[in-house]
Amino acid sequence: MSSPTSSPPTTTGNRAADPGVPAPVRAHTNDDTNDDTSADTSALDAVIARAERAFDTLALLEPAIVAAALDAAAEALGAHTDELVELAVGETGLTTPRLTGELRRTRVQLRLFARTVERGDHLDVRIDAADAGFALGVPRDDLRRLLVPVGPVVVFAASNFPFAFSVAGGDTASALAAGCPVIVKAHPGHPELSRRVADVVASALVEAGLPEGTLQLVEGQDTGVAALRHPRVRAASFTGSLRAGRILADLAASRPDPIPFFGELGSVNPVVVTAAGLEATRPELAQGFVASVSGSAGQLCTKPGFLLVPEGAGLGPAVATAAASVPEHRLLNAGIADGYEARRDAVLGTVGVRIIHAGGLRRDADGHGWATPTIVEVGLETLRDHRDTLLDEAFGPLSVIVDYPVGTDLAATLADLFPGNLTSTLHAGPDETGPDVERLVRTMARTSGRVLLRGWPTGVAVTPAMQHGGPWPATTSDATSVGTAAIARFLRGVAFQGARDDLLPPAARDANPWGVGRSVCAAGESTAW
Amino acid sequence: MSSPTSSPPTTTGNRAADPGVPAPVRAHTNDDTNDDTSADTSALDAVIARAERAFDTLALLEPAIVAAALDAAAEALGAHTDELVELAVGETGLTTPRLTGELRRTRVQLRLFARTVERGDHLDVRIDAADAGFALGVPRDDLRRLLVPVGPVVVFAASNFPFAFSVAGGDTASALAAGCPVIVKAHPGHPELSRRVADVVASALVEAGLPEGTLQLVEGQDTGVAALRHPRVRAASFTGSLRAGRILADLAASRPDPIPFFGELGSVNPVVVTAAGLEATRPELAQGFVASVSGSAGQLCTKPGFLLVPEGAGLGPAVATAAASVPEHRLLNAGIADGYEARRDAVLGTVGVRIIHAGGLRRDADGHGWATPTIVEVGLETLRDHRDTLLDEAFGPLSVIVDYPVGTDLAATLADLFPGNLTSTLHAGPDETGPDVERLVRTMARTSGRVLLRGWPTGVAVTPAMQHGGPWPATTSDATSVGTAAIARFLRGVAFQGARDDLLPPAARDANPWGVGRSVCAAGESTAW
Repeated sequence: MSSPTSSPPTTTGNRAADPGVPAPVRAHTNDDTNDDTSADTSALDAVIARAERAFDTLALLEPAIVAAALDAAAEALGAHTDELVELAVGETGLTTPRLTGELRRTRVQLRLFARTVERGDHLDVRIDAADAGFALGVPRDDLRRLLVPVGPVVVFAASNFPFAFSVAGGDTASALAAGCPVIVKAHPGHPELSRRVADVVASALVEAGLPEGTLQLVEGQDTGVAALRHPRVRAASFTGSLRAGRILADLAASRPDPIPFFGELGSVNPVVVTAAGLEATRPELAQGFVASVSGSAGQLCTKPGFLLVPEGAGLGPAVATAAASVPEHRLLNAGIADGYEARRDAVLGTVGVRIIHAGGLRRDADGHGWATPTIVEVGLETLRDHRDTLLDEAFGPLSVIVDYPVGTDLAATLADLFPGNLTSTLHAGPDETGPDVERLVRTMARTSGRVLLRGWPTGVAVTPAMQHGGPWPATTSDATSVGTAAIARFLRGVAFQGARDDLLPPAARDANPWGVGRSVCAAGESTAW
Repeated sequence: MSSPTSSPPTTTGNRAADPGVPAPVRAHTNDDTNDDTSADTSALDAVIARAERAFDTLALLEPAIVAAALDAAAEALGAHTDELVELAVGETGLTTPRLTGELRRTRVQLRLFARTVERGDHLDVRIDAADAGFALGVPRDDLRRLLVPVGPVVVFAASNFPFAFSVAGGDTASALAAGCPVIVKAHPGHPELSRRVADVVASALVEAGLPEGTLQLVEGQDTGVAALRHPRVRAASFTGSLRAGRILADLAASRPDPIPFFGELGSVNPVVVTAAGLEATRPELAQGFVASVSGSAGQLCTKPGFLLVPEGAGLGPAVATAAASVPEHRLLNAGIADGYEARRDAVLGTVGVRIIHAGGLRRDADGHGWATPTIVEVGLETLRDHRDTLLDEAFGPLSVIVDYPVGTDLAATLADLFPGNLTSTLHAGPDETGPDVERLVRTMARTSGRVLLRGWPTGVAVTPAMQHGGPWPATTSDATSVGTAAIARFLRGVAFQGARDDLLPPAARDANPWGVGRSVCAAGESTAW
C-alpha cells in the first residue's frame, strides 16, 4: 500500500513504505500476475481517513481551483512523458507509439474534465421558487436541488490501458472532477508505473491547492477488497474481467450498506455486414477488420470479436493476407497469455470452426506470450450450436467470422447471441433503408452502449457524447466510463428547502457566484402542468 | 395476477382472472396483510411478453403522444375521484381529505411528467461534430449520445400512499415518461383499489394511443419476485420496509445479469433545533412537531422520528397538550399495527425514556389498530447507550425528543447516529451563522437527500427540484423517487457513431424534429480543452 502525498518518504518518492513483499497469488484482477495479499488494516484506515479529510476540504473549493489542478495533473504527466512511457513499455509490452498516444489521451481526458468542472452543467442545479399557489393545493417552499460528490471512491485500475484506465485514467479524472477523493487500487501488471504516476499526479494536485489525500494509491488484492468494504468508501469503479468484476460487484452489493459499483467487464463487439454493406466496403473491409482485431494485440475492450457476413462473402483470402502481415506483439502479462491460449485452443478445437489464419502464440524466456492474429470462420448454425464455447470474449488477437444465410433475421440473431456489449457495428449499404435495417439499428441500441454505422469500434474518443458502457455483461450498470457523462457516477442529488442564501452551496445561491447553468421553475408555473 | 389491458374480461374489468385464492403469508411487503403466494409462470411470461411488445411500440411514438396519454391518465383518475377515494378509505383507513389530496397529487405528478416528456431535457442529447483536428490526434467521427428507456420495469407499490406511491404513482409515472412499460406488483393492503386504478389508467393510456401492455398489474409475493428475476425485466423500484427492500435489492443484485433496483426503505428524519432556533420557533414548535408526527397516523416516510433540542428546552407540556388533541387514527393494516406496537413497546420499555404523551393503540373488532401519538423524551447519552433499540424507524405516530447538552457537537452527533435519511431539518436562529451551523448543514447534506432549514419534512412537493432519496438505508441508490429527476432511473445512454441521419433516433437527427434541447461540441473545440 502506498500513499503518494504523505507519510515517511521512501526511495520512490513520498509514498508510505510498502507493507511487505508481494506474495504470488491468483489475483482477483483480470490476469495472473503476482499480487500482494497483505491487507494492513491500520494502514488502510489511515489512507481512508486522509481521503475523508480531503473530501471535507474539497467540498469548500471553488471549481476554478479543481479545474486548475486537473490541468496541472495533465501538465505534470506531459512533463514526464519519456520516463513514463519507457516504464510502461517495459511493464506492459505495449508499443511506444501506442503508449505515447495513450498518455496524450489521458492528458486530454484530465483537461476535458477540467472544462466540465468549470462549466458546472454536471451539477444539474434546479431551483423551484416558493409558490403560494402551487398545484398540489398547499404552498411550495423554496427548493433548490443540485448534485454533490458522493465521498471517497475506490478505482480498480485495468491492465490493458496503463495510463487511460489506470491511476490517472478516466475513472480517476471523473471522480476528482466530481469532487471525490480517489483511492486507486493499482493493477499488479504495471506496479512501478502506477507508483510513479501516483507520485507525479498527487504532487501536482497538492501543489495546485488540492488537499493531501485527494489521490492515493493502494496495492494488493486484499487491500483492494478491504477498501471496497470500508464504511467510508461511497462508490467504486472497475475495468477488467467478468469473473473479477462479478466478485467485486457482489461484494459491493452485499455490504451492510450497499454502494454503487461501476464495472466494465466483458464485450465481444459484433460487427454486422449486410449484402449491400459488403459490396460497398469490400475494398477496405478485410484490412480494417484485421487492424481493429490486432491493434494492441487485441487487448482492447472494444475489439471486434465477431464479424457477421453473408454466406459466400469470400473474405477469407483477403483477411488471411492482412493477418499474415501483422507483426508479433507481446501480450500484457503471463496471466493474459494463459487466458488467451486457453480461449484460442477452445475455439480452434471446436468442430465446424475453419481456420482463416492460424496465427501464433509463443512464450519467451521470461514467460511472456507473443501473439499474431488468429482468425477463424464458422457458420451461424455452428455458432448457435457451440455458443457456450464460442461466444466468450477472447482477450487477445482472435476474432470469428460468422457466415449467415441469406434471409437471416439479423436483429433476432443479435438479440439472441449478443445481448450485452459495449459496441455493435453495422456496415450497411449507403442507401440501404427500410424496416429491416431500422430494426437492426434499434436492436443494436438495445444490446449495446455505442452503435457504429461505419468504421470500427476500437479507438474510443474521449468527448462529451461518448458512451462506454452497455447492458450486462458489458458493464454492471447503465453508466459510461468514458466521456463527460462519466462524472455522473460519482454524484448524488441533494435538495435544500427553505434555506437562507448563505447556508446554500454556492452554485444554488441567488447570486450564482460560479455562473453555472440552472433551470428554474417559477411561482405559478405549476398551474400549467 | 391481473392484466388490465387484455385477456378474458372478469367482473372487475378487462383484467385476466386471478390465479387463485390468496393464502395467508407474511409477505415481503412492509406489512403482514395476507398476500397471494401463487406464481403462475406462464401467466407472468404472458404479462412480460406484452410488456416487451409494448416497449417496441413505445419506442416509435412521438413524445407528444406519450405526454397526451399521461394527461389522459390524470384526467381519467380525476373522473373517478369519488369512487376511488371511497375504495381507498375502506382499504387503508386513511381519511377522505388526505386521500383526496393524494389523488390530486398523483394527477399533478402524471401531468408534470407529461410536460417533462414534451420538453425532452431528460434525453440529455449531446452531439459531437466530426472533427479532423480532434485533440486525441486521430479524427473524431460524428457522435451523438442520448438517453433511451431501459425496457420493461417492475414497480413494487407501497401501502402508505395508495395513490401517489402505488399503481399510478411516481414510479409508474416516471417510468412511463421514460418510455418503459410498467408491471406493477400490487400492494396487498389495497387490492381492490389497485385493480380499479389499473383498469382506469391502463384503459386511458390505450385509448390515448399507447400500446396494450404499457401498464399491467400483477399480484402476489411470489409473482413479484418472479417478475424481478425475469430476464426481460430491466429495472425495478420499491417503496417499503428495510427488511423487504433489502431482500429484493439482494435478489436484483444476484441475478445472472444484475439489474438496477431503486428502493426507498427506511428513514427517521431527524430535526435539530439550536438554542437560537428554539427561541425563534418556540411559539409554533410543539404544534408543528406534533402535526408532522401524527399526520396520516405517522405512516409517512418523512415523519420526524427524532427532535433534537437543547437540554432544558421545556417543550414537554406544550407537546403533550398538542398530542392530546390529536384524534385517534386507524393504522393501515394489522401488520403495520403489529409492527408499531412492537416498536412502541420497545421504546417505552427502555430505561431512561421519559413519557411526554403516552398515546394509545387499541384494536377494533376487525383487528385494525387505532392510534394516538406517543411522544417520549431521552437524553442524548441514553440514545447513544440504547441506539440498537431506539434508533429504528417507528412506522406510526411515535417520536422521540432528544435533549442534548450545551456544547454538543451536533454535526458529529448526526453523522454518528443518523447517517442515512431522506431528510434532515435544522431549525436555527434567523441570524445564526458561523462555522458550526455551516458544518451542520454540510453534514445534513452528506447524510440525507433533503435538507430543510425551516418547516417540517412531511408534505413532499412534486416538483423539478425535489429529492426523495438519501444514503442507505433511506434508499438503495443515490436516485430520487419524487420529482422530475426520478425519470433518470429508467434511462440509459446510447451513442451513435457515424450514423446516417435517417437511422438516428429523431431527437438526435440534424433537423431536431422533437425540438429538444441539445448540447453540441463543434469541430475544433477540443483544441481548447
